[in-house]
Amino acid sequence: MGAISRYLDALVREFSRLPGVGPKSASRLAFHVLRMPEGDVRSLVDAIREVRKHITACAVCGGIADGERCAICADPARDRGVICVVEQQKDVLTVERSGAFTGLYHVLNGVISPLDGIGPEELNIKPLLERCKDVAVVEIVIATNPSVEGDATSLYLSKIIKPSGIKVTRIAHGIPVGADLEFADGATIYQSLKCRVEM
Amino acid sequence: MGAISRYLDALVREFSRLPGVGPKSASRLAFHVLRMPEGDVRSLVDAIREVRKHITACAVCGGIADGERCAICADPARDRGVICVVEQQKDVLTVERSGAFTGLYHVLNGVISPLDGIGPEELNIKPLLERCKDVAVVEIVIATNPSVEGDATSLYLSKIIKPSGIKVTRIAHGIPVGADLEFADGATIYQSLKCRVEM
Repeated sequence: MGAISRYLDALVREFSRLPGVGPKSASRLAFHVLRMPEGDVRSLVDAIREVRKHITACAVCGGIADGERCAICADPARDRGVICVVEQQKDVLTVERSGAFTGLYHVLNGVISPLDGIGPEELNIKPLLERCKDVAVVEIVIATNPSVEGDATSLYLSKIIKPSGIKVTRIAHGIPVGADLEFADGATIYQSLKCRVEM
Repeated sequence: MGAISRYLDALVREFSRLPGVGPKSASRLAFHVLRMPEGDVRSLVDAIREVRKHITACAVCGGIADGERCAICADPARDRGVICVVEQQKDVLTVERSGAFTGLYHVLNGVISPLDGIGPEELNIKPLLERCKDVAVVEIVIATNPSVEGDATSLYLSKIIKPSGIKVTRIAHGIPVGADLEFADGATIYQSLKCRVEM
């Protein structure tokens, strides 16, 4: 099929490059844009530009911030004794959404992965060690993913932080709430048994 | 959870308004935008704006056009004897993608739907009748959807076009290719029997 509109084709191509957007969804989105009220198109374009212009990494934790410090680091109500270490900025939002954590965060911006040439120096680890010098800090909760790299990173962090006397913990890995034991893989069941909790 | 970034929240909200994009996908897209190279962001924003600025409805068929006439109406290789009537501009692309049609199109911009106050006058029907006056036109293929409104529209068109001596046909409705008879609904099986073809 020849191009019916090169402008439409260009937009479909741009949308297709976004994560989770296949050719059919891209085409659907492009047609939607064609039909959107002018004001809505402006809001969308402005929101994309504003995000790029204003969002920075928090100077303290490396998380998403509109200014120099993120809303969490700046919030006096947060528990300054516990720091949750995550791989990516978006993981902060995921943990926040659970409502189960009231402490501060620290974003590593990746995990130790020798195969990809990423060692501890490439990650946001030095600032974390600086933060650990604060006497208020009593616990570091490591929330890296349960992957080989996530495990290695968590072991590395535990080894370098523990000597300072701070408690280092890692979030539990096991059967997801609502899931059926029948469909869990061996590694998950192994973890769920290893991390079993007395009732 | 309080807002971590009002700019990120605004973008997530804008993405959520797009069709088929839920809160999780919207958040994923927003984080992707945050990480995209500057050039890619510019391409995306430009593509959205260009689509709005340049795309118009073809003066002949009502389909998507970059100029006054669409690429299909302007293509001398297309069969000018057959016109495929579709509900929406995007249906043109769907039929084109099949590669099974070499004629021209006509976009109704909707279907007759008395409940929504849409009668034949609200649709792009008068220009279709004008096009039918061209002696080159020998067949009108109606490709409205197999819905109550699509059926009513197809009946209406057939009634007003047939007197001019032009052949009016409708695309077949039946079991989709690759689908299992077992999962077809009664109405589809009814259609597939009614439209059965001699082998």
